[in-house]
Amino acid sequence: MPLALLIGNKGYSSWSLRAWLLLKQLGIEFEEILIPLYQADSKAKLLAFSPAGKVPALRADDILVWESLAIVEFIAERFPDLPVWPRDPAARALARSLSAEMHAGFTALRSEYPTNFRRAPGAIAAPSAAAAADIARIDASWRDARKRFGGQGPFLFGEFSAADAMFAPVVCRFRAYRLDVSPQAQDYMRAIEALPAYREWTESGRAEPWVLEKFEK
Amino acid sequence: MPLALLIGNKGYSSWSLRAWLLLKQLGIEFEEILIPLYQADSKAKLLAFSPAGKVPALRADDILVWESLAIVEFIAERFPDLPVWPRDPAARALARSLSAEMHAGFTALRSEYPTNFRRAPGAIAAPSAAAAADIARIDASWRDARKRFGGQGPFLFGEFSAADAMFAPVVCRFRAYRLDVSPQAQDYMRAIEALPAYREWTESGRAEPWVLEKFEK
Ligand SMILES: N[C@@H](CCC(=O)N[C@@H](CS)C(=O)NCC(=O)O)C(=O)O
Ligand SMILES: N[C@@H](CCC(=O)N[C@@H](CS)C(=O)NCC(=O)O)C(=O)O
Repeated sequence: MPLALLIGNKGYSSWSLRAWLLLKQLGIEFEEILIPLYQADSKAKLLAFSPAGKVPALRADDILVWESLAIVEFIAERFPDLPVWPRDPAARALARSLSAEMHAGFTALRSEYPTNFRRAPGAIAAPSAAAAADIARIDASWRDARKRFGGQGPFLFGEFSAADAMFAPVVCRFRAYRLDVSPQAQDYMRAIEALPAYREWTESGRAEPWVLEKFEK
Repeated sequence: MPLALLIGNKGYSSWSLRAWLLLKQLGIEFEEILIPLYQADSKAKLLAFSPAGKVPALRADDILVWESLAIVEFIAERFPDLPVWPRDPAARALARSLSAEMHAGFTALRSEYPTNFRRAPGAIAAPSAAAAADIARIDASWRDARKRFGGQGPFLFGEFSAADAMFAPVVCRFRAYRLDVSPQAQDYMRAIEALPAYREWTESGRAEPWVLEKFEK
């Protein structure tokens, strides 16, 4: 049985993108099951698939795994020959630290600037102090990872890894709201935006019929 | 060089406990570096150790890793013979899903009922709808893990694992505020409370001089 990945709307679902982008970039085949979020019957549909009632969730034979970061670790174990995490132990420890920071944190940035692939780029209100601190921390950690482990590649650890998948929705936010970041961060954003899978997601999100007012700013 | 773990006050630092309890329970030796949190110079001290400026953070030779969940994965890799995660792949996928859910979620429970090992047990305001949903979800997932994978052991996956370390501060909250949970959840709480390392942490927290008003409810 192939893998099946449950995702939300591509226009808005930042967590879904993380798992989806990783699978696509690594060339792993999977069936995509899309549930439009925040409709009357969405929660029931999510709960029928996963006990946490959220996307993403991945089914592999009789194993179900949810939470973006748990899916990443599951994929790393199931496909040990694919470069899910950087091979070098120090790089891998940093990739996991940054990915976990993204998984649990940056809540001010996330609430002030929702991921929205349907949005025409344009500035809105300036970041609060907390969101500005989130942006500065992300910018610094991207620069630090690239400086230490970027080598010749354009991604955080040179070659594409799960850490890039975890930060991809931040690239969307920085672009959509024209947030102010360093030239190095802008280079990195262009590398993410050039990924065929990222473009495919963006185009599908724009073509979707659903508009979620609570994420429109 | 041995491992060095940076932690906050044992009275209040829920995230520190997670990493600390895992290392102690597995019998891994480490040097403990305690920084009292939310004092005038705390942030500077944290930032001197780790770029995210938070506890826990672990130093192993020249590798630094922070974020509780990234520390867990680092330990699992560095000590492959220790039972950090359950051995069975389905159990391990569930353990990682639940641990990641804890890492990123249950924010209503976390803000309404701060971890506080210094508190004499006693009820406060009833949970909001969001906190009640968090409590119900945690109770259900503990029961589900134990039913499917608990076997003869008292922990979520029978033997102690990282998933128990991730939920240990929730045990403190359920007890400290006398939150209403199922009999099965109460059995599980007693198993966590009987761990020598959990008792050691609790006693140290009680003996600390620092009282943080913002966590006193
Ligand atoms: N920590 C989770 C976050 C998952 C999450 O919040 N997903 C959102 C969509 S991006 C969701 O499912 N929302 C629907 C709902 O809560 O009903 C992860 O890493 O996967
Ligand atoms: N997501 C992080 C959370 C770490 C965290 O928030 N730690 C708190 C103490 S429990 C902290 O360091 N607070 C001090 C500060 O932010 O200045 C993890 O899993 O380790």
